[in-house]
Amino acid sequence: MKSNSYKFAVIGGDKRQLFLIASLLSDGYSVLAGGFDSLSGSGDISFVSVEQAIAHSDIIILPLPAVCADGSLNAPFNSEKIIFSEDVQTMLRSKLVFAGMSDRLVRSYPQLSGAKVYDYSLKEEFAVLNSVPTAEGALALAMQKSERTIWGSKIMIIGYGRIGKSLSRLASSMGAAVTVCARGSGDRAAAQTLGYEVLDTSSLHELRGFDFIFNTVPAMLLDKKLLSCTDQSSIVLDLASLPGGVDFEAAKRLGIDAFRALALPGKYAPKTAAEIIKSVVLDILRENKA
Amino acid sequence: MKSNSYKFAVIGGDKRQLFLIASLLSDGYSVLAGGFDSLSGSGDISFVSVEQAIAHSDIIILPLPAVCADGSLNAPFNSEKIIFSEDVQTMLRSKLVFAGMSDRLVRSYPQLSGAKVYDYSLKEEFAVLNSVPTAEGALALAMQKSERTIWGSKIMIIGYGRIGKSLSRLASSMGAAVTVCARGSGDRAAAQTLGYEVLDTSSLHELRGFDFIFNTVPAMLLDKKLLSCTDQSSIVLDLASLPGGVDFEAAKRLGIDAFRALALPGKYAPKTAAEIIKSVVLDILRENKA
Amino acid sequence: MKSNSYKFAVIGGDKRQLFLIASLLSDGYSVLAGGFDSLSGSGDISFVSVEQAIAHSDIIILPLPAVCADGSLNAPFNSEKIIFSEDVQTMLRSKLVFAGMSDRLVRSYPQLSGAKVYDYSLKEEFAVLNSVPTAEGALALAMQKSERTIWGSKIMIIGYGRIGKSLSRLASSMGAAVTVCARGSGDRAAAQTLGYEVLDTSSLHELRGFDFIFNTVPAMLLDKKLLSCTDQSSIVLDLASLPGGVDFEAAKRLGIDAFRALALPGKYAPKTAAEIIKSVVLDILRENKA
Amino acid sequence: MKSNSYKFAVIGGDKRQLFLIASLLSDGYSVLAGGFDSLSGSGDISFVSVEQAIAHSDIIILPLPAVCADGSLNAPFNSEKIIFSEDVQTMLRSKLVFAGMSDRLVRSYPQLSGAKVYDYSLKEEFAVLNSVPTAEGALALAMQKSERTIWGSKIMIIGYGRIGKSLSRLASSMGAAVTVCARGSGDRAAAQTLGYEVLDTSSLHELRGFDFIFNTVPAMLLDKKLLSCTDQSSIVLDLASLPGGVDFEAAKRLGIDAFRALALPGKYAPKTAAEIIKSVVLDILRENKA
Repeated sequence: MKSNSYKFAVIGGDKRQLFLIASLLSDGYSVLAGGFDSLSGSGDISFVSVEQAIAHSDIIILPLPAVCADGSLNAPFNSEKIIFSEDVQTMLRSKLVFAGMSDRLVRSYPQLSGAKVYDYSLKEEFAVLNSVPTAEGALALAMQKSERTIWGSKIMIIGYGRIGKSLSRLASSMGAAVTVCARGSGDRAAAQTLGYEVLDTSSLHELRGFDFIFNTVPAMLLDKKLLSCTDQSSIVLDLASLPGGVDFEAAKRLGIDAFRALALPGKYAPKTAAEIIKSVVLDILRENKA
Repeated sequence: MKSNSYKFAVIGGDKRQLFLIASLLSDGYSVLAGGFDSLSGSGDISFVSVEQAIAHSDIIILPLPAVCADGSLNAPFNSEKIIFSEDVQTMLRSKLVFAGMSDRLVRSYPQLSGAKVYDYSLKEEFAVLNSVPTAEGALALAMQKSERTIWGSKIMIIGYGRIGKSLSRLASSMGAAVTVCARGSGDRAAAQTLGYEVLDTSSLHELRGFDFIFNTVPAMLLDKKLLSCTDQSSIVLDLASLPGGVDFEAAKRLGIDAFRALALPGKYAPKTAAEIIKSVVLDILRENKA
Repeated sequence: MKSNSYKFAVIGGDKRQLFLIASLLSDGYSVLAGGFDSLSGSGDISFVSVEQAIAHSDIIILPLPAVCADGSLNAPFNSEKIIFSEDVQTMLRSKLVFAGMSDRLVRSYPQLSGAKVYDYSLKEEFAVLNSVPTAEGALALAMQKSERTIWGSKIMIIGYGRIGKSLSRLASSMGAAVTVCARGSGDRAAAQTLGYEVLDTSSLHELRGFDFIFNTVPAMLLDKKLLSCTDQSSIVLDLASLPGGVDFEAAKRLGIDAFRALALPGKYAPKTAAEIIKSVVLDILRENKA
Repeated sequence: MKSNSYKFAVIGGDKRQLFLIASLLSDGYSVLAGGFDSLSGSGDISFVSVEQAIAHSDIIILPLPAVCADGSLNAPFNSEKIIFSEDVQTMLRSKLVFAGMSDRLVRSYPQLSGAKVYDYSLKEEFAVLNSVPTAEGALALAMQKSERTIWGSKIMIIGYGRIGKSLSRLASSMGAAVTVCARGSGDRAAAQTLGYEVLDTSSLHELRGFDFIFNTVPAMLLDKKLLSCTDQSSIVLDLASLPGGVDFEAAKRLGIDAFRALALPGKYAPKTAAEIIKSVVLDILRENKA
C-alpha cells in the first residue's frame, strides 16, 4: 500500500479524534468518520455509519481507550451505545486496526485476537510526546488555581519519569525554583545536572515552603501524615493515574487545595493530542511498511 | 524613621492591596487597612476607617490607579464611594504617600500637590517587574482560549518593549517558535541574538501561519486590512493599553478569535502584583532614606 | 543599483575581512580584495592592488578600525604600510565607503569628509550582534583559564549593558549561578526577571564566593581595595574597553588571576564577526536603497 | 563509623585526586595522600608513602582507572611504578576501598576479591554527573577548533545516551540549532520534545550543512562512506570510547578536521571531576551506613 493511498476510518472518540480526522484530511488522506451521529456534518468531514466507514477503509483508528468498561465503543459523540457486531468484527480482521489500550478491546471482542491490532498507546514515543501536553496542562491548571505567577514560585515535583521530566523542565524554564523528589540516585543526579534541587523519596517527611506540589507517582505518598506536614497555602495537583497518590479527604480536612489532573492531553490540548496519535500511527505504518 | 518601625496604611484597592497588607504584616510591619468596609475582618488584618488608618500611620499606600475617573478613591471593596475630605487631605500632607498614577490623584485633590507623593507606577523597575505577570497572564489566556499546546506553536509578538521581551522569552522557553515584529533594527538584532525570527514592522503586510498573535503596541496595527491577511485559525490577543491595536469589529466579521488582555498583573496574579508594589515602595523608601 | 549587481572592494583588515570576502562571494557578489599582499591568492579570492580594487568597485568596505593611530590603513596582511594617495582619496569620494570607527579615518583623510562614509561600527545592531561572540569568547576564555565547569559555578557580572546581558544569559543557560551588579534599579529589575541575583554597584564592597568575575564597565571598579576583598581563587576577566576596569598590578600582587579580554569577536570568532559586518553593511545599503 | 570521623587515604591518580584531597580536607575530613612523590608538599596536604597512607586510614580512594594495563597503580605523579605488595593487599582487605574500573584492579590483585571494593565509576549517578563536564569540555574543544560561535551554528549529535542528552541541551542553550541522530523512536521523541531536529540512525547517509558533528556512539558510524558525504568545512569530534566511531584516516584524506575527545572530565575540568567522585563516594558510604 503506498502511503498516499491510505484509506483511514476514524471510529468513535472525543475531540481528539475529530482533530485527528481534520489533520489526516489536510495531509491529503482519504478519511471516513463513524460513531459521531450526534454531530451534524461539518463541511469537510464525511460522517457515515460505523459499518460503512470500516467497509470502505483499510486502516481503522479507534480512540484511547478504544472501548469503555462495558465493552462498548468509546464514542461520546454518538447518541447510542455502539457494540461491534459479528459482521463488523469479521471486517476488522482483514484491516489494520489501531487502538488505544487494545488489551481491553481484545478482551471484549475475542474474535479480534487474531487481527492486526496495533496499540499506539503502548509505544514509548506516544508516552514521551504526551508528557508535553500533560506538563503544560498541569501548569495551566496550576496557573488557574493560584493567584500568583509560576515565575518565582517554589515547586515540588514528586517522581521523575517522563511526566516529571517534562514538568520540571517547563516549570523551571518559566522561572520557578524546582525541587525533584525521586527514588533512584541516577534520577536525582540527572535532575541535579539540570539545576533542580533534589530529594530522596525516602526522606519525604514534610513539604514546607512550596507554592505548588505536583505528584506524578501512582502510590499513596501524600497521605494524611505527609499532608499534615504540608503548608496550607500549597496547591497540590495529582497527576498520577487512578487511584492516584493524594489523600483528598485528608487534604480537604486540613484546608489544603488539592486537585486531580487526569487525561490532560485530551482535555487540555486535544489538537496536540491528535497530532501525537497521528504521528505515532504513521510511524507504526512506516515501520511495518504497510 | 527606622525601617522596622514603619507604620503603613493601605487605603482602598482590590485583591492586590489585600495581598499587599498580608505581605507587609508577615514581614513584621504594622499595617492598618481602610476602604474595605464590604469585607468582614479576616483574622490578622485590622480594617478601620480611612480616617483612622491614615491618622495612625506614617506611610500611606494608595492603589493603582489611586483614584477613579470621577476623583473618588479606587475602592472596589468599599460599599460607598470615598472622597477624601479636607481633613484627610490635610493629614495626607504630613505623611509619605505612595500612589499609582499619582497625576490623576493630584489633579483631583490639588491640595496634595505640595505633599510627598511618590508614584510607584512610574518607576522603571515597576514596569519591568510587571512585565513578568503580564507575559505569564497573556500566555495563560492563550492556553485557555486554544485547544493546542504553546509548545510547538508558532507565535507572533508585535512590539519589543518590556512586555514584548518578557513575552517572547516565556513563549520561547515553553517551546514555541517566536517571531518578533519590531520597528528598530537594534531591537530586531536583540531579538535575533535570542534565537527569534524577526520582522520589520514596516513589512507587516500579512500574518500567515501563526497559532497566536500578541500585540503589545498601542497603535492600530491589526486593522481591517492586516486582519484580512491573517489566518482564521489564529488567536489574537491585544495587550496594548486602550484604545489598543486591534480592530475587534473587523476580527469578528472575519471570524478571527480576538481578545483584549488588559491589566493582567492585577487580574491574573494579584499576589505577585502585590509583591511588586511592596518591593518598589520599600525601594523608594530606601532610596529616600525615609 | 540593483543589489545583485553590487561590486564590492574589501580593503585591508584581518581574518574577519577574509571571511567577509568569502561570504560575499558565496552570496554571489563580485568582490575585489586589496591590501593583502602577504597572502598568496587562495583559489576564489581576487587579490589585487588597493588602487585596482577601488577603481573597479562601487562599494568599498574598510576594516574596524579602518585606520591605525598613525593614519595608515589597518592592514595586517599587507607587507608594507598603506597610506591612501590623493588619487585614491579622489576615487573614494565617488564611492560608497563603509568603515569601522570612521571618525579617525576622516580625521586622517580630511578630503573624505564630503564622501559617503557609513560607519557600520556605530550602528546599534552592530553592537548588539557583536555582544554574542563577545560573550561566547569571554566564556571560552574562562573555560580555558579554569579547571572547573561553568556549570555549577558562581559568576559575578559587573555591568548590565549589551555585553552584560548576553554574558549573563549565556552563563546562566550553561548552568552557572549568576549575580549581576548594576547601577540602575531598572536594570537590576530586568536581571531579576531573568532569575539572576542582583547587586547595586554602590554596594560593591567585596566579592566573595565567585568562581568567575567578569567586568564590563569601563571604570576602575576592581581597584586595589575591592580586589583585596576578593577570593584568591576567583578568576577575573576584564572586558571593558581600555583603560579597563581592573587594577592588574594589584591583582598580581594579591595572587588573583586576572586577564584582559578585548576585541573578542575578531579574535575568538572572526567568521561570525564577518557575518555581522556583512549583515550590517547590507542593511545600511537596503535602508539607503543604494 | 560517624561520617565526620572518616579517615581517608587518597592513593595515586592525577589532578582530579589532588582536587579531591583538597575538597575532602576543606570539608573537614582527615586525609592522607600516597603515590605523589614527584610533588613537593603543598601546605595543607600530607604526602606520605602508600603504605603509611593506607595503614592510618579506614577508607581508601583509588583513581579512575585504579590500575594501569600492567597492573601497576595509576599514579602519574609518582616517580616510580607502584605495585601493591602482599602486605598492602592484606591491609586493603580490612578497609573500605573505592576504585574506578575495579574489575581490572581485582584481576590484577586477586587477593582483593574478598575485600570491600566499591566501584564508583559503575554508579549510574557517576556517569550522569560526568556527562556535564564531558559535554562542556566537548563544546570548549569545538570552540577552540573553530573560528565561529556555537551560537547560530548547526550541530549534529549522534547518539542520545547520557552524553548526547547533556551535549544537545548545552549546545541548544548556547544558541545552536541541534539535530539528534538516534536509533530508538522513544529517544527521538524525547529529543523532539526539547525542540531538536531528529534523524533515525538508519537514515544516516549524508551529513550536510553542519558546522559541528559530535559522535557519542561507540561504533564505526562515521566511516569512509559517510565522511565522503560530509561537508569539508564541518568539524568532527569523536567522544565515543575507544576504538571510537570515526575513521580518522579517511577524514584526513578528505580534508575534514576530526578530533578525538576522550576522558574529558579529567582533562577539561579536574576540579569538577573531583567533586563528582567525592559526591558519589560519600553517597555510597551513606547508603552502606558505613
